[in-house]
Formats: sequence, C-alpha cells, structure tokens
Amino acid sequence: MNQARVNKVLDEMSERGMDHLIISDPSSIDYLTGYNNHPGERMFVLLLSLDGNHTMFLNKLFYLDQDLQMNLVWYADTEDGPALVADALKDANVVGVDKNWEARFLMRVMELSNDECCFELGSICVDHVRMIKEEKEKELMREASRLNDLAIDQVIQLCAKGNLTEIEVSKQVAGIFQSLGCSGNSFEPIVAYGANGADGHHEGDDSLLKPGDSIVIDMGGIYQGYCSDMTRTVFYKEVSDEQRKVYDLVRKANEIAEAMIKPGVKLCDIDKAARDVISEAGYGENFNHRLGHFIGRNVHEYGDVSAAFDMEVEPGMIFSIEPGIYLQGDFGVRIEDLVLVTEDGCEILNSYTKDLLVIG
Amino acid sequence: MNQARVNKVLDEMSERGMDHLIISDPSSIDYLTGYNNHPGERMFVLLLSLDGNHTMFLNKLFYLDQDLQMNLVWYADTEDGPALVADALKDANVVGVDKNWEARFLMRVMELSNDECCFELGSICVDHVRMIKEEKEKELMREASRLNDLAIDQVIQLCAKGNLTEIEVSKQVAGIFQSLGCSGNSFEPIVAYGANGADGHHEGDDSLLKPGDSIVIDMGGIYQGYCSDMTRTVFYKEVSDEQRKVYDLVRKANEIAEAMIKPGVKLCDIDKAARDVISEAGYGENFNHRLGHFIGRNVHEYGDVSAAFDMEVEPGMIFSIEPGIYLQGDFGVRIEDLVLVTEDGCEILNSYTKDLLVIG
Repeated sequence: MNQARVNKVLDEMSERGMDHLIISDPSSIDYLTGYNNHPGERMFVLLLSLDGNHTMFLNKLFYLDQDLQMNLVWYADTEDGPALVADALKDANVVGVDKNWEARFLMRVMELSNDECCFELGSICVDHVRMIKEEKEKELMREASRLNDLAIDQVIQLCAKGNLTEIEVSKQVAGIFQSLGCSGNSFEPIVAYGANGADGHHEGDDSLLKPGDSIVIDMGGIYQGYCSDMTRTVFYKEVSDEQRKVYDLVRKANEIAEAMIKPGVKLCDIDKAARDVISEAGYGENFNHRLGHFIGRNVHEYGDVSAAFDMEVEPGMIFSIEPGIYLQGDFGVRIEDLVLVTEDGCEILNSYTKDLLVIG
Repeated sequence: MNQARVNKVLDEMSERGMDHLIISDPSSIDYLTGYNNHPGERMFVLLLSLDGNHTMFLNKLFYLDQDLQMNLVWYADTEDGPALVADALKDANVVGVDKNWEARFLMRVMELSNDECCFELGSICVDHVRMIKEEKEKELMREASRLNDLAIDQVIQLCAKGNLTEIEVSKQVAGIFQSLGCSGNSFEPIVAYGANGADGHHEGDDSLLKPGDSIVIDMGGIYQGYCSDMTRTVFYKEVSDEQRKVYDLVRKANEIAEAMIKPGVKLCDIDKAARDVISEAGYGENFNHRLGHFIGRNVHEYGDVSAAFDMEVEPGMIFSIEPGIYLQGDFGVRIEDLVLVTEDGCEILNSYTKDLLVIG
C-alpha cells in the first residue's frame, strides 16, 4: 500500500464528510496499492475507511502475489460479492462510490445497507489526488513525451514517402514506440489525410496522399505505465493560402493558451483563450471539442480543459492543449502538446517543432 | 428499430412489473435499433417504455445517420445528461436499470427522481431475449464457427513448424481470420506451450516449443458481427502416458456434456456432468473454471454453464462447452466447442477433430 497516497485520499474523504470510500477503478487501485489487476467483469473493490481499516475484495480467480498490508476478503463466482461489501459497511454513515461502479454491484449494496447509510459519488477523492503528479511521475511523463517527439518524427518521415496508406502508417506506430522503450500505444493512433483530418469519426483506411493534403497525426505511447499524447499536422508536397492561414491560427491558439498557464488560472479560462483566437477569426464552429484533457497513468484522466471546469490549476497538474480547426470535406489542423504546471508557469513536455512543415 | 426484438423485451418488462427500462449496453442498443455507437465515457441510453414511447439519449458528438423511429434527446458535454433521463421518468413507477450503468449516471437519476419511483436491475429483460438466437443469427454463428475450424487448422500448422514463439503464432491469428472473411479476433488468442497452458494468467511470450509440450490454442473470430470461440489442445512431437490420460478425460467430459444437451436440461447439470467426469478421476481441483459461457454478438454474453445457473436450456441458445485440466508447472488441456440447442438436442458448431494430435 502507498500510505502517502492513501493518506491524501483519506484527507479528501474527510473534507467531504465521507467515512468510507468504494474504489473500483483498477487504475486507481494500482495507484494506491501497487496491485495491478484486470478484473474483467468480476467485482474488484478497495474499500477505504477513515479509521484506517482498509479492505480489498477479490475474486478467488484473481492472481495476487504481493502483501498489500490490508484486510483481504476473497469471494468465489458463486458467492454474493456485493453482500460482503455491504457487511463491511455496517457502521458506515456516508459512503463515497466510484463513479464507474456498475449498477449490478451498487444496487445490491444499497439494497442490503442500513437506511442510515447514505451513498454519494466519491471518485473525486482519488481523482483529485491523481491530478497532482509526484516528482517521479513528472519524470516519467517528461520521458514519455520526449519519446513521443522522437516517434512522431519517424511517423512524419513515413508519411513523407508518399506511398503509404493511412492504415499502413498507423499500423507501424506501436512498433516505433516499442523500439524506443515504450510498451506500446496509449491509444489507437490517428493518421488522417486530407478531408479525413476534418472528420472526427474517421477511422484510418486505405487512403493515399494527394498533393495539398493536410496530415493530422495524433499519437501517444506508454512509458513505464505513464501515457503521452501529442498531435502535429503537416502538409504533403504543397500548402494553400487558406491552409496556411488556418494552421497559423491553430498554432496561435495553442501558444496563447500555453503562455497563460500558471497556478491560479482557471481551466475554463485557458479553453476560452484558445477558443477566442479561433472564434474571432470566424472559425468558432469548426473547433468543436474541449481544448484538452488531463493525462497520466490513463490517457484520459479526471479533468478537462473546457468551459465545464472552473477549477484553478495547481503545480503538478498535467493536461493536453489541443486546439483544432476542421473544415468538413476539405482539411483539418490540430496541434497538441502536453503541459506540466509548475510553481510559476508551465513546462511544455513536447519539443517537436510547431513550424508549418511541407513534406514529400 | 427492430420492433420484434423490442416487443420481446417489453414482454419481459411486463412479466417483471417494470414500466420503464434503461438500457446502456451499446451492444444491446445496436441489437434493438441497428444503431452501432461507441459512446466512450459519455452517457448513451435507450429508454424503453411499456406504453411504446421509447427515447434515445445521445451526446451531440455522437454520429447518427439513420432514422431510429423514436424520440431522440440530444445533450452537450456541458449539460446534465442524467437529468434529462430523470425528466423522462416523471411518471415511472418501476424502472429497470442496465446492470453495467455507471454510478455517476445512476446516482444522479436516482437523486432527481420521485420518491415513488423505484429502481431495480433490469438487464435480464434484454439478456433473456438475446439468449435465444433467431434463424439468421444461428446461420451467422454456424458460419463463424465453421471459419474458426478452418482458422485453427492453420494455427496448428504454424505450431507444427516448431520454430515460432507463442507470440509469433498468436500475432498471426487476426490476419488468418481476416483472410477467411472475418473482421478479426473476437478476443486475444491464447497459444500456450507446455506449462504455460496450465497457467490461467499466462500471457503469450517468447517461449519456443520443446518435445512433449502440450499446446493449448484458444481462439475466435468475428463474422458479420457474430463471435466464434473454440479451443483445441495438441502435443508437440511426443505425448506422455499421463498427458494422454488427461486428454482423454477432458475429451470425455466435453462429449458427455454435449451429449446430454437438449431443451429442459439445466445449465448447472451440464456443468456437473462434465465436472463429475473429471473429479471422479481425481482431477477435480485442476478444473477450476465454469464449463462454459453464452456467446453471440459478444464473446461473453449473459449466462454461464456453471453451478450458479439453474436455468433450463431452450432451443436457440448458444454457449461454449470447455472443460479443462491444468497441472501447474507441467501441462494443460482444454477442449472447447460452441453448441446450439435445437428442438430435441443440440448442434455442435465446431467440427474440427477432437482426436489427440501429435504434431511436428
């Protein structure tokens, strides 16, 4: 058990009046205990208690070879797992519940619990702690992004050959990451040519490059359990005036957003700054997604750089800044970096050039 | 909308006293409406109402290009999706809830609902209908398994070469399925040499074959949206007396189970029949999983062939029969077919030989 992390979560629980917290996200359980389990459909719970008496509920088919230093409750497929959790909540008053806990577990626990026991969403206690990366985590995220810069350069060179389809390029990305020491992709890479780069639902296909195509490359790897994610947009053989104009706008939105990041600034204000740059030029309707998302052990973690989050940034937070402009049927541009908030500003974790590149 | 399927679900709701049903499983929503959406983390709900006034709740970023013939409620990321569902439940009394609906949606709807409105698990209404395959579904499942037989033969031949690692073989499986007209794997194939075949947690690695190794091959593909799944165990260059004995036991368990399947027989009794064969020979502890699982559009669907299911089988049900014996540190054997229950017995969808094969 990582006592320091668990203690922070207990503090968050205490602040919110929770005496117990049901955690079911395997990634968060790994973060708090070092136990990396893939439960599939089976119930897997870490129950934290303010009194320090923590319990892990495990299916007998899970494989555990470490000492977790807490109570373990093992159950078989033919037993009532949620009933065992309800048992442990006999003296509970306010129970925080993992935001993704499935109804089939939650409803059974609620059914078997005392009337005095009330349930509320509680993942924020863990999510909040995970938002602030520790020194070691920052190092791993820096390295993950440094390797992403190296990887994207290789992918751009593959595109420059001009004779590979979107799929032929994207299939090679995992191998490129592995050759650089990553375990693989952190998500399915996007390599989108021309108008495909403007289609948010496009899945890579057999398209080949045509002169004048934009190429949107969005990729990330996993380095020692930590994720990278970046996007660069380049152009094949030639670039039109309008493409150049749109590219410069997206780059400006990216850089203005990054320049304002420092402790105390609100996430929604960062989104607004980038969005205003794009809207004022008349392309507001063409930037139809949030500016960014938090990232760490998962490629998408709690927290968005969007109008919906008025949270102030703090040192240790890491999130993406990824404005884009998408002209349906024509071309798309997105430029994305990961940034780490520091004591007095931010560190941009990607150094790959943002100059407009014409390749091939 | 597939009215026939929806009507069957409404019948199930009616039988159970539910006036509304919240469905969130994308696979079930596709089954009922033909809309194949991947919602990611966003709320995606099909709300069925006994009065026929069905509603689908969609995020504005979802892509929909068909007429679903029902009310559509679109919401943006910055809006309160669950509140819109709660609105639609104003006159609801008993609401069935999808077994996997996440707490962050469920708890918000429960919070905003009338006190008179009660919630209970309701997936069974859809799961039950999906358990009974229609004629067209049976055809697709037959073909998916026929192609699986062809694919596994190619995989066995790859193993027979004797010079490919577990990973080198398993990486080729998706391509083999695609060359046969499937879209790819239905799950990550298992190719396990020797003692690895006895380890339920083993992930394929760089192991090479040694004479006397068992080779457990568990693979399946997706054919026009329907899944196959089968296992055969072969031996490399030689087979010991004990391996032969264990193999014959597993085969007998598989065949005795399959021979008893007909309408009216209980799933738990089928599991018991296979398990008894293995236990009576002293290997009970070495058969540590359910006998089988239901399958169709998903490789694991509602329903197990295990002690936990006393349900009687009906014509149209399709499930796996997959007994195994696993001797830690030594070798493993599993033999799996898919079976379709017919009016008076069952059809075994796999025809690949179950004779003990020594290859290489």
